[in-house]
Amino acid sequence: MIGKVYGVGVGPGDPELLTVKALRLIREAKVICSPRAGDDSESFALSIVKDYIDPARQKIMTPVFPMSMDKEVLGKAWDGAADQVLAELEKGNDLVFLTLGDPSLYSTYSYILERIKKRIKDIRSETVSGVSSINLAAARAGIDLALGQERLAVMPMGRDLEPVRSALADFDTVVLMKVNRGFGKLVSLLGEMGLLGKAVYVSRCGTDREKIIRDLQAIKADELDYFSIVIVRKWIAAG
Amino acid sequence: MIGKVYGVGVGPGDPELLTVKALRLIREAKVICSPRAGDDSESFALSIVKDYIDPARQKIMTPVFPMSMDKEVLGKAWDGAADQVLAELEKGNDLVFLTLGDPSLYSTYSYILERIKKRIKDIRSETVSGVSSINLAAARAGIDLALGQERLAVMPMGRDLEPVRSALADFDTVVLMKVNRGFGKLVSLLGEMGLLGKAVYVSRCGTDREKIIRDLQAIKADELDYFSIVIVRKWIAAG
Repeated sequence: MIGKVYGVGVGPGDPELLTVKALRLIREAKVICSPRAGDDSESFALSIVKDYIDPARQKIMTPVFPMSMDKEVLGKAWDGAADQVLAELEKGNDLVFLTLGDPSLYSTYSYILERIKKRIKDIRSETVSGVSSINLAAARAGIDLALGQERLAVMPMGRDLEPVRSALADFDTVVLMKVNRGFGKLVSLLGEMGLLGKAVYVSRCGTDREKIIRDLQAIKADELDYFSIVIVRKWIAAG
Repeated sequence: MIGKVYGVGVGPGDPELLTVKALRLIREAKVICSPRAGDDSESFALSIVKDYIDPARQKIMTPVFPMSMDKEVLGKAWDGAADQVLAELEKGNDLVFLTLGDPSLYSTYSYILERIKKRIKDIRSETVSGVSSINLAAARAGIDLALGQERLAVMPMGRDLEPVRSALADFDTVVLMKVNRGFGKLVSLLGEMGLLGKAVYVSRCGTDREKIIRDLQAIKADELDYFSIVIVRKWIAAG
């Protein structure tokens, strides 16, 4: 029988923020797949769960998903990982695919599952939700994402700032992901809209490298991290 | 010494979706506070963790937070709960306040913490993130909340549908909370915008009363649940 594939969220960084279910599935897994950013880097998701796994008993696969915006480069990486996963499933092994945070929010697991389903239509799969980095970032910064009738927008920083400007105008809270791209332009926009005092920068939340910075203008370009978020909340009280 | 207060997310309903940290804090707690909707109803958050608590050893408080939109009624309920919590903290007891899902997203814990901080400015407090119902609803419905450069909006249904219409026009995915209010108007709007085939209704996700319904027009008014979400995702493939 063909194995079952689990897409398991491991939370944003603190091993104690794994769910009880994720912990059980990771411990039971014969095969664990966890992407990493390059040949010389370790898998961040795998590092979060390292105390819960046993490489002597479990097969660990860490395909490289390059930090690229090139669809062809990424597509090739995802094809390769899907092939690796499929080979294990076809041997009859269940497999746990680790994702940072929650698998439904900006996770690469969806691309892998899509490819697997194209090859085996009735594959048994289960997505196991995790704590998202946006929820932890808010908790660590001591602010709410939304209360009562408020509205929340979540989006990555892109080249075009217009959607960001529009969301900042219309929503109570805006969470901007991957702000390392175009951070200077974001700071200018927030200044122009009078929102600099309502923004918090959070990077690597839940890890020992966590940074929470309220003065965005004080952040230097070389400090910016790939795993960085800016939360703009209009109802942050003036410090 | 005055006790420490923990706002602990217990996830959306499945006891296995508690985090390892929430489980530890709930087991260690001398006092647990968990709101319920009425005198004759049990606390939903408490019911999720019931196998992890021991009423013989732990004090359980379940203040009533009425299902009301009246700010005065709610304010009074929150004042009362904050008084109860403060009384325990002032005895030197640490206290765990349970919240459904994640404490940063539409949780009443913020109102309690705000009141406590007004009385004891330097109170020790910690917010412990949990899996949000929107993440689980997406996982159970088999769809993504956002991928790549996509944008996500989250908002409760209100009397005014214009913000919903505007978000549906601008965002890749829109999550609507508490859709039991004004559901008929929402179905009309989705029909008008050609989005009925892109919407999924999810209620009580993670519990044994979970419902996932893709044909919104087939839902009867008396089926609608307070804990209900509609996810509209433009990139849902036509069934």
